[in-house]
Amino acid sequence: MKKDFWSNVNVAVLGGGSFGTVLANLASKNCGSVTLFMRNEDQARAMNSTRTNPNYSKDVVLSDKIKAVSSLEKVFELKPKMVIFALPSHATREVAKTIAHFFKGDEIVLHATKGIEEQSLKRISVVLREELPILRIGAISGPNLAGELARNEPAATVVSSPFDDVIEAGEQVLTTDRFRVYTAHDLIGVEWGGTLKNIFAIASGILDSSGFGWNTRSLLLSRGLAEMVRFGVAMGAKPETFLGLAGIGDLIATCSSSQSRNFRVGYQLAKGRSLADVLAELGQVAEGVRTTRIVYEFALERGVEMPITEAVYHIIQGEWSVERGVQHLMTRPQVQDEWV
Amino acid sequence: MKKDFWSNVNVAVLGGGSFGTVLANLASKNCGSVTLFMRNEDQARAMNSTRTNPNYSKDVVLSDKIKAVSSLEKVFELKPKMVIFALPSHATREVAKTIAHFFKGDEIVLHATKGIEEQSLKRISVVLREELPILRIGAISGPNLAGELARNEPAATVVSSPFDDVIEAGEQVLTTDRFRVYTAHDLIGVEWGGTLKNIFAIASGILDSSGFGWNTRSLLLSRGLAEMVRFGVAMGAKPETFLGLAGIGDLIATCSSSQSRNFRVGYQLAKGRSLADVLAELGQVAEGVRTTRIVYEFALERGVEMPITEAVYHIIQGEWSVERGVQHLMTRPQVQDEWV
Repeated sequence: MKKDFWSNVNVAVLGGGSFGTVLANLASKNCGSVTLFMRNEDQARAMNSTRTNPNYSKDVVLSDKIKAVSSLEKVFELKPKMVIFALPSHATREVAKTIAHFFKGDEIVLHATKGIEEQSLKRISVVLREELPILRIGAISGPNLAGELARNEPAATVVSSPFDDVIEAGEQVLTTDRFRVYTAHDLIGVEWGGTLKNIFAIASGILDSSGFGWNTRSLLLSRGLAEMVRFGVAMGAKPETFLGLAGIGDLIATCSSSQSRNFRVGYQLAKGRSLADVLAELGQVAEGVRTTRIVYEFALERGVEMPITEAVYHIIQGEWSVERGVQHLMTRPQVQDEWV
Repeated sequence: MKKDFWSNVNVAVLGGGSFGTVLANLASKNCGSVTLFMRNEDQARAMNSTRTNPNYSKDVVLSDKIKAVSSLEKVFELKPKMVIFALPSHATREVAKTIAHFFKGDEIVLHATKGIEEQSLKRISVVLREELPILRIGAISGPNLAGELARNEPAATVVSSPFDDVIEAGEQVLTTDRFRVYTAHDLIGVEWGGTLKNIFAIASGILDSSGFGWNTRSLLLSRGLAEMVRFGVAMGAKPETFLGLAGIGDLIATCSSSQSRNFRVGYQLAKGRSLADVLAELGQVAEGVRTTRIVYEFALERGVEMPITEAVYHIIQGEWSVERGVQHLMTRPQVQDEWV
């Protein structure tokens, strides 16, 4: 596709959360128009009139090219050539099912969801493939804290798909002079990278609560990366994918920002509070708690060595104290040559 | 060597800086006695009487097994079986030359110096090999901020050598229940990792000064890692070495701690001050400035692509503004598949 193809067509973003809003703004720089779907009609109306998202930072001023809508039918009025899913993992299948009949078949589908479908353990691209009459599907993943993107700080992401034209379209739609797009054909690795990092974000919050500094966090991130690679490879991913922005890059950002939901869960757990209490207070999904359970059980079954995941699992379950977790990790048998 | 071999013998640490002092304390947990060499006689005397290092944090209480000395001759009085160099890169050759005749030949030599010899571009293990009658040489490197180690926070390092018995000795001497030792046979990669990271620490200080957050820093770290791998491979290192604690681990810690000298140089440069002013005020060596020049020129000559190093070089030289550097990096041609 020629780059100016996009300047005349419509792109749809599903999900008016902070990241969906940022993605709509990025796409608006390269596309003819952007339709942003959110369930709440009042919110959509407010966004159209005030050009800001009332639920999030006032820093994000919406481009005039963006129109917010609250009906899925309206999303397809302008015949979008790209549909970007920016929904929580648990909502994706239902929305995809609802809108499947609107697709003509030539659309490109991307998703920006970090997590997997809970019951099935399916990656989000697989869920979309099952529900939509579309083959050309990809994912967007990287160290992309929405607040920082809204402030136009330099950042980059990875667009991943087995299909070259999906990658190319993602580059053309999202690249700006403050937002670079890298690419990866290993969709399995990119999706698992965005999922697994949440386990280590919980661990990072736990360690932060103990007052530990950068030596400890760097140790967590380095050995967390090793666990991500081992698990990813067992799922069919390529190890090198985890060395990029959607692997170590996203891991660093998520584990360092005290804004991350999963980080906050870890922090509060380490203060001795119960998981139920912490989650109730948060009032939001903490993807990492579910991910930890799923990955721990799967790793156990498959014999993938994931000692940090194991410790996070037992701390979440209330079975281990933080001190026991740290001691377990620090006094394991010596490992010969770090990367095997 | 049996593990209890060390509990009856002496280990020497050369260099009474903050890291040398911490290493002496770690070794004292596993060894019969530790001799800590520092040039300043008053400082040595003060350490022996107060059990703290007067120049550094009072958190480090020295083990009773440590004796500080200020003469190199005295270092060898107790016939150390291991000698650990913890000196600045520029001082290592001279000290090694001075003490070469004290060695019997069965000692194990480790160094904890991050940097290379300026004129020759030689790695520190090569310098030691040239000056000492010793083959069994290795390096200690990892995310090891001395202040955090002094507070007994959980941390880990990498002991690296082509020789198994050096690695084993390093593990036995340095491992404690709060300090894990990983191993790597790729000494070239470990030494270059500890050297190259300082370039990106300067870059991190520059970006921090601009107020950018974790998206930008994670981008820097991910792409800095890619440059480290490319340069390291050109020098004969194995790529996977950079994925471990002595690569990405040390990179994260050094680029995130605002205590690092190189970080502070970058921060001040970005405030518009000249390099001469910044270095004069710092009153300490900032290894990264020299490293940036050396690596930039070498990469240019060899055709190794290092765009971040290039930008840091031009900012250090006063040739580019920070904004120009950022723009240069953000608007480079798209890269197909991140890791090749």
